[in-house]
Amino acid sequence: MAKAAKHAITPTRAEDYPEWYQQVIKAGDLAEPSPVRGCMVIKPWGFALWESMQRALDDMFKATGHQNAYFPLFIPMSFLEKEAEHVEGFAKECAVVTHHRLEPSEGGGLRPAGPLEEPLIVRPTSETIIGATYAKWVQSWRDLPIKINQWANVVRWEMRTRMFLRTAEFLWQEGHTVHATAEEAWEETQAMIDVYAEFAERWMAMPVIRGYKTPAERFPGAVETLSIEAMMQDRKALQAGTSHFLGQNFSKAQEIQFQDQAGDLQFAWTTSWGVSTRLIGALIMTHSDDDGFVLPPRLAPAQIVILPIYRNDQQRSAILEYVDSLKEELQAQTMAGAPLRVEVDDRDLRGGEKKWHHVKRGVPIRIEIGPKDLEKNAAFVARRDTGETCSMPRAQLVVEIADMLCNMQKSLFQRAESLRQAHSKTIETVDEFRQFFTPESPDQPEIHGGFAYCHFADEQDLQELLKELKVTIRCIPQADNDQPGKCFVTGKAAPRMAIFAKAY
Amino acid sequence: MAKAAKHAITPTRAEDYPEWYQQVIKAGDLAEPSPVRGCMVIKPWGFALWESMQRALDDMFKATGHQNAYFPLFIPMSFLEKEAEHVEGFAKECAVVTHHRLEPSEGGGLRPAGPLEEPLIVRPTSETIIGATYAKWVQSWRDLPIKINQWANVVRWEMRTRMFLRTAEFLWQEGHTVHATAEEAWEETQAMIDVYAEFAERWMAMPVIRGYKTPAERFPGAVETLSIEAMMQDRKALQAGTSHFLGQNFSKAQEIQFQDQAGDLQFAWTTSWGVSTRLIGALIMTHSDDDGFVLPPRLAPAQIVILPIYRNDQQRSAILEYVDSLKEELQAQTMAGAPLRVEVDDRDLRGGEKKWHHVKRGVPIRIEIGPKDLEKNAAFVARRDTGETCSMPRAQLVVEIADMLCNMQKSLFQRAESLRQAHSKTIETVDEFRQFFTPESPDQPEIHGGFAYCHFADEQDLQELLKELKVTIRCIPQADNDQPGKCFVTGKAAPRMAIFAKAY
Repeated sequence: MAKAAKHAITPTRAEDYPEWYQQVIKAGDLAEPSPVRGCMVIKPWGFALWESMQRALDDMFKATGHQNAYFPLFIPMSFLEKEAEHVEGFAKECAVVTHHRLEPSEGGGLRPAGPLEEPLIVRPTSETIIGATYAKWVQSWRDLPIKINQWANVVRWEMRTRMFLRTAEFLWQEGHTVHATAEEAWEETQAMIDVYAEFAERWMAMPVIRGYKTPAERFPGAVETLSIEAMMQDRKALQAGTSHFLGQNFSKAQEIQFQDQAGDLQFAWTTSWGVSTRLIGALIMTHSDDDGFVLPPRLAPAQIVILPIYRNDQQRSAILEYVDSLKEELQAQTMAGAPLRVEVDDRDLRGGEKKWHHVKRGVPIRIEIGPKDLEKNAAFVARRDTGETCSMPRAQLVVEIADMLCNMQKSLFQRAESLRQAHSKTIETVDEFRQFFTPESPDQPEIHGGFAYCHFADEQDLQELLKELKVTIRCIPQADNDQPGKCFVTGKAAPRMAIFAKAY
Repeated sequence: MAKAAKHAITPTRAEDYPEWYQQVIKAGDLAEPSPVRGCMVIKPWGFALWESMQRALDDMFKATGHQNAYFPLFIPMSFLEKEAEHVEGFAKECAVVTHHRLEPSEGGGLRPAGPLEEPLIVRPTSETIIGATYAKWVQSWRDLPIKINQWANVVRWEMRTRMFLRTAEFLWQEGHTVHATAEEAWEETQAMIDVYAEFAERWMAMPVIRGYKTPAERFPGAVETLSIEAMMQDRKALQAGTSHFLGQNFSKAQEIQFQDQAGDLQFAWTTSWGVSTRLIGALIMTHSDDDGFVLPPRLAPAQIVILPIYRNDQQRSAILEYVDSLKEELQAQTMAGAPLRVEVDDRDLRGGEKKWHHVKRGVPIRIEIGPKDLEKNAAFVARRDTGETCSMPRAQLVVEIADMLCNMQKSLFQRAESLRQAHSKTIETVDEFRQFFTPESPDQPEIHGGFAYCHFADEQDLQELLKELKVTIRCIPQADNDQPGKCFVTGKAAPRMAIFAKAY
């Protein structure tokens, strides 16, 4: 038992990374599988984190001129058929509603009844249903731009699911905008990937790379897809957000047309962009350790938890009084303009159990107050990310707490960035590439590789190699990527590099 | 045309109440029908109102000890079958998912493929799917109570839909709690109807009556249902929120059991409670007038709109400067602790069009600033609810604005309460009852009746009369309802009165 306490999570990352991920979710009270195939239950602590992410993103969307609205859950099958690539991309994973009631069946129980004239698809994404409405709203250049976001649930029938990363139903936001010119639509596409990158780096403390998707990896129906890509601790890439320049593909399919200032009828230019509860999976795999979840302070639903420790009623009342006034003092401090979020856990539980409860849930700072702290007017403080603990005078704690949280936020980012740097490599030959993506030790088949930066000319030339190694092209980075070179497979001239990685 | 300007909405309430309702929604940019049968699109202004309502309710839920979480959209058909009354109540209006992909059909186009082993129901409400998860969470009395709320979309396949009031898909919140004792579960049921009543009265400025539903009107599977009922301007009742004491019905159907402190296995006691986007329909019909929507200030996404009025560029810059600094001064004021929400509308539109745009959307206060106001350091102020306008010194406006909004909030409540009082009547005979629910004039078939307070013993005795007059029992009021009497139909002894009304 003493050994088990050393790491709260079994197995550790080194022992079995995929299973460690599932156990962190379980131990951290974030989510659990539901009785419905492929769907999960997001538990209160996991959902509070999602609310925290939603609030931050929503503020950023509104600050960049977007409004929220709500469009129907169902899409008539015929709508999906209008954009050929789009339907091709989603037809294989659609939940289809075919009936509108249940009736008693002959063998007892119920059966579907009231067949619908046209089947309805539970939205996998809403370009087609929102586009149909936009077509009515847009008449003149004066009606543009339209910049709307929707917070919603979507369904993509995945056969192999993994909590937060890939579930049949998931929660997300989808922005859908309409513009008079290609330039303006492209600016929007870029602006929103910038918003996502800022959110990932400043709030999630997760460094990301912005880049273009290659044609094969684009959103079905898009002209250009931008993504942000992050490196997880097992060195795999995770696509954390996408922003699509849809050109006139959807406006032509759905007849979103407007009269321009010269009086001519034009097809509009559209974009869409989204992030989902997948970000929670990214957060888990970026910062957590073998003791469980580690939350970046800016997103933590509780940034500080205070545990009162006492042995009898007399101690109890004095300690609770001390704890309550300390809580108030800490709540009066701010981080990034917001008052600190402080909780007191006075449940009747064994001290060890209670401590580990908060460690596993990733609360950034744990404060324990016992009789000796009271005597010394002090506090025992433990930092979740480094595990450091110390006893501090109360006044000093109150003065320094906000800095401590800011440092933690920065330090989490730096740790993740160091990991990425350590496992990013420019590669020029197939041999080197093959070696890079081969496990170093058979004991750790899951942790190897990283981001390989390689010049390439045509993705068709790489298919065989990538398939063999289970590697994909993550993106063509937008920054610092002007040096031409030669394709690492064919030697053909290549204007830019792409990032290659195994991916979630 | 001059006549049309007198009322922005055609027809007026008196001319055609149901059509007036639809036109207020349209003119107020709140929502519109979608291409999907029975579903609506909630437009940005309508959705901003819903967000405002959500924020207020969510704060109240959290202040009363609830947490948010998220459960699956889909319910396996077999789950629904477990509680007999429940499935009876919902089987006739279920969207049923039977397939999980689309494939090319022989005649071209697509057809559903990949039949599911068990059909899935799109949740009409989540007692059964949430209960299945609670059964796993609840083991001991230490795990109780569980107090969780979910913001979600639900689907009930309605044949006759009406925007906000009755749509196939709607947005709502559903609270689901589990308790160790009947007393505690009942307290929760009552506490939540009290929260709804407080929200309706203090935020929506809509007076409501709390009461018990009769057995025939209860939630399918509930032991007791409490509701809040409001009177609309056409004197019909609208059920604005419900809170259900589910007894042990669902815990027995789903085996939510716990070991009590004595070590015995007990079935838990559960509750559920919800309000939906229907509240927006209630808000519209409580306060709006023949010029469109009227928003209570506490919920208005924009409480004040400032319209700059100028004829040339020179005037423009001086006026915009004045307007911007006025906006800042007004935003520094607060209502109920929150900073005032002020917008400036500087779009290039005709003045009349712009004014009516905001009138129809129900913005509580409109301020117009033209060259003369600048000269006098004043502002032209128009109050949406009364239509009163005046010119005020700028300094006075800033000092009085918060009071003005508070008065408006109170006055809207009082106006609604006066209407309800004027059309509430204690009735003791069938003749009087029949007369009360018969249109006074054939010109206004939609506006008549009100709340009839009648003693009754057994709802079975009234079925025929109620069916004939299309009247329903709204609730048995909880307050001031201790006087026994005689059933107005049968003369049987009756312990209490109920409210009878036509209803939405």
